[in-house]
Amino acid sequence: MPAPLAPLSLRYGKGLSITSSGATGHLFYGMFVRAAEWLRLHGLVETAQRFRLAGDMAMLKEIVLSIVCGIACMTANADDSLIGQVRQWRMEYEPVVVRQLSDFTAIPSIAADASGLGTMANRLKTELSQRGFKAQLLQGGQGVPAIVYGELNTPGARRTVVFYAHYDGQPVDRAEWETDPFAPVLRSEASPKAPALDWSHLRPPFNPEWRLFGRAVSDDKSSIVAFLQAFDALKAVGRAPSVNVRVFWEGEEERGSPHLADLLRQNRSLLAADLWLIGDGPMHQSRRRTLYFGARGSLDLKATIYGPLRPLHSGHYGNWAPNPAYQAAELVMDLRAPDGSIRIPGFDRDVRPLTTAERAAIAALPSVEPSLKREFGIARGESDDGLTASTMRPALNVVDLKAGGPARAIPATAEVGLDFRLVPDQTPEHVRELVEKRLQDLGWTVLHAEPDEPTRSTRSKLLRLDWSDGYPGYRVDMTNPASRAVLATAERAGGPVAVLPMMGGSVPIYLFTKILDVPAIGLAIANHDNNQHAANENARLQNLWDGIETYAAMLAELNW
Amino acid sequence: MPAPLAPLSLRYGKGLSITSSGATGHLFYGMFVRAAEWLRLHGLVETAQRFRLAGDMAMLKEIVLSIVCGIACMTANADDSLIGQVRQWRMEYEPVVVRQLSDFTAIPSIAADASGLGTMANRLKTELSQRGFKAQLLQGGQGVPAIVYGELNTPGARRTVVFYAHYDGQPVDRAEWETDPFAPVLRSEASPKAPALDWSHLRPPFNPEWRLFGRAVSDDKSSIVAFLQAFDALKAVGRAPSVNVRVFWEGEEERGSPHLADLLRQNRSLLAADLWLIGDGPMHQSRRRTLYFGARGSLDLKATIYGPLRPLHSGHYGNWAPNPAYQAAELVMDLRAPDGSIRIPGFDRDVRPLTTAERAAIAALPSVEPSLKREFGIARGESDDGLTASTMRPALNVVDLKAGGPARAIPATAEVGLDFRLVPDQTPEHVRELVEKRLQDLGWTVLHAEPDEPTRSTRSKLLRLDWSDGYPGYRVDMTNPASRAVLATAERAGGPVAVLPMMGGSVPIYLFTKILDVPAIGLAIANHDNNQHAANENARLQNLWDGIETYAAMLAELNW
Repeated sequence: MPAPLAPLSLRYGKGLSITSSGATGHLFYGMFVRAAEWLRLHGLVETAQRFRLAGDMAMLKEIVLSIVCGIACMTANADDSLIGQVRQWRMEYEPVVVRQLSDFTAIPSIAADASGLGTMANRLKTELSQRGFKAQLLQGGQGVPAIVYGELNTPGARRTVVFYAHYDGQPVDRAEWETDPFAPVLRSEASPKAPALDWSHLRPPFNPEWRLFGRAVSDDKSSIVAFLQAFDALKAVGRAPSVNVRVFWEGEEERGSPHLADLLRQNRSLLAADLWLIGDGPMHQSRRRTLYFGARGSLDLKATIYGPLRPLHSGHYGNWAPNPAYQAAELVMDLRAPDGSIRIPGFDRDVRPLTTAERAAIAALPSVEPSLKREFGIARGESDDGLTASTMRPALNVVDLKAGGPARAIPATAEVGLDFRLVPDQTPEHVRELVEKRLQDLGWTVLHAEPDEPTRSTRSKLLRLDWSDGYPGYRVDMTNPASRAVLATAERAGGPVAVLPMMGGSVPIYLFTKILDVPAIGLAIANHDNNQHAANENARLQNLWDGIETYAAMLAELNW
Repeated sequence: MPAPLAPLSLRYGKGLSITSSGATGHLFYGMFVRAAEWLRLHGLVETAQRFRLAGDMAMLKEIVLSIVCGIACMTANADDSLIGQVRQWRMEYEPVVVRQLSDFTAIPSIAADASGLGTMANRLKTELSQRGFKAQLLQGGQGVPAIVYGELNTPGARRTVVFYAHYDGQPVDRAEWETDPFAPVLRSEASPKAPALDWSHLRPPFNPEWRLFGRAVSDDKSSIVAFLQAFDALKAVGRAPSVNVRVFWEGEEERGSPHLADLLRQNRSLLAADLWLIGDGPMHQSRRRTLYFGARGSLDLKATIYGPLRPLHSGHYGNWAPNPAYQAAELVMDLRAPDGSIRIPGFDRDVRPLTTAERAAIAALPSVEPSLKREFGIARGESDDGLTASTMRPALNVVDLKAGGPARAIPATAEVGLDFRLVPDQTPEHVRELVEKRLQDLGWTVLHAEPDEPTRSTRSKLLRLDWSDGYPGYRVDMTNPASRAVLATAERAGGPVAVLPMMGGSVPIYLFTKILDVPAIGLAIANHDNNQHAANENARLQNLWDGIETYAAMLAELNW
């Protein structure tokens, strides 16, 4: 007997809610799911993120609605547009798609596992070769995960597009995972505590709210799977690519891509192209198809504050011995105001203003703040701006605080982890210089190593700063022909697109412009609530389905 | 063959330094140690805390000096004052004293070990009975460690003095200890990495810089041993107590004495007395005999700040979602200024000014700040006042900071551990009220439980405060007859005394005045650098020797 189907809920506006308990059996359920998809695509209802169980009366309604919707669904199935055909193909092949994503996720391609990274790269090279790509591994040196590179020319194509993704995942802390991060599990809902579904013998369609759990499943292997499956779908429906296709899948993104610049320089001629499409990052919280035309840069700072050589009794020495835990609070407040602005004179001087098009794109985004506030359990944001407007500014996040413990003692040291998010045209070098100067002006003794005895005996407010290399932010011109073509293609594939002038999170896409002088645009398909970089990472199936369609459109219809 | 003797160093002012390498053998070594003690007692040299090894020439000098000093030492041995006699007795019985302290320390009388506490209480009752005390255990109820109570009346005595100490120790984190905290080890220096001395067959005198390591060895079992050994010494030299003696040794001090008030009330008639001597706390850093005429009170506050329900990606949400790690810094800075003053209007209104006598006592203290700065590796204190002047003020110490971690995420919560040290006439109740009002005025939503959904959705700056019960500070009048008698007795026993109007650390001695209406004075004997409340707690032998003499004086000579 197959596992019970998960309940599925549709909402129409704020009032009407249509819920399938999953109990009406396979026939009705399949019709219901297909009809739900059709209704959603036509903007009539939205699929709810959270499920609700209905009572007996509701089940009757559900059966009736399923039949009605099933008839409507015929229309959907009769759609002979490119996307209609791709969708039809996908509905039949859902188990194949999920199987590929599950197989990829089972390969432990994380920085701690060089062999897993190697296995993954070889597997992807094979996948490309099987699809007719001229595939190779670009080596970056001893211990550097290879780039999986693929080339497929389209006779008569004017444009060349590079599809970027990464096949490595974040490190894992197994203790925090509900199940093995490399033994993917399909669950009926977002909670990792939901039981695993035995889906191996289930017929499609699957409930699109199901999620596959595993490390890298959505960051970023679902982008790779969406690309490969879109390619297969196009072949199945007899459509050829509209551009010359290049594939560039790296294996070091989660380590900050330390060799990416060198690899781009070394392979400049191979990579000659008109556009990079960056298949990474989460979709907009509205679940609309999402493009981002830039990303904030990144710069990490670990600050260590030195107090007494050993912890001191807080009664006998409190008020006299300097307290590094207290100074940690001073440090944070020296650098940042409650509204998130950064307390460094001249810090905003390098910030490039938003263009009219960028401001318009932000204004056009659907409001997600009320539902995010509910989801996160917060009453208000740090500033009165919306989420996207806020993340257009540079950020200084306090991500780590560590000092003392349960003993009532003045600690010997305190540690503060800070995370700068940079925007064009800030550079890590200039930010570092501004921060250090600011702290010195405020009386800190800025060091880059442990203080020695002479320093301890003569200087106070001892602060060691350890900086990451970091990289700058990036925004491409949203009005150039490539940008406009990508947006139009995405809209044709999936209706209104969430257009982000810049993603709040960081990916080093500035490199493509800087080194190859080519624009780069982000194509996000992962659900925003995917537990990215945390335990129990997951990929929502509907996001994968949408991703396949968007990739199919980019492969077959993009041109300018 | 006995273990090698530890080097011993004497310093005369800043220039002359006399060092025994320990290599001159037992005869000279013993003379050297005795001579050193004599010289030190006569204020001619001070025993160095840190040892220095001397070269060959130094050894010759050492031998000559040992002989010279040995002759001088005869004078010391010929001292027939009470203290001279007690010292003579102690020199002979050093192994017995150390053995008793070691035996007591081996009993795991900590809160986590109810059986260890029971064993210790019974052992102490026996020790008192064997010395002619009418001894009993005062029970405070189920699970409450008993008070060891002893009574010994002196025919004709006018005054009754209660000797307080506690037989419980701080909890242990065994992973942090160099050796088992309940298998005491004698070492030749302060470092717990120094090898254990096999002292069982060594003849006295022992090197007074040796230290015995173990939990509760100095906090507070050395006070109990000093009392018992002083009593034995007096008996040996034929001296009777000058007062009626009461012993009150509690077993819950390190848990904050939660039942002490009840026990005092219940046993009010047993405890009728003229004075309590509180045998607890560290000696002044100058190593002078130390009396404290009060102690700061204590009040703990654990503050939990609530941000989003789950950690959020700091790139995608940084600048928009409220960050509790940042708010932790705001909280700290809302309450405290860099000079240690507390940023609460009216906070100092309850602070009783120091008297002329108290100010004079502070001014008379030897300067310890330069050597403490060296010891702690700090260039300056938080304020320009000296250590003791600083600790006469109320303190707000940041003792714990915890938020986030290595992931670049806005954490869900942040925790701040604060430790208030109160001075007369502040009360925990009023401080709590002032702090909460101040935080509410500054926009915090002050809670005393986890925020529920309605609170989260309507209020920002969510702050949960968990307060300890706390207790107030205390200062006795230093000019009253009992105070003057105690000071004079201590000075007769050991020369200039470090007089602290109030100890920086907290002991609940306010209770004796509040409940029994009797003055209490602190008699500290533990070395200040004893790793109190931390791993590798230790007792320096010279402090124990000094403690025996001070207790002998208090038992035999105190009167007013």
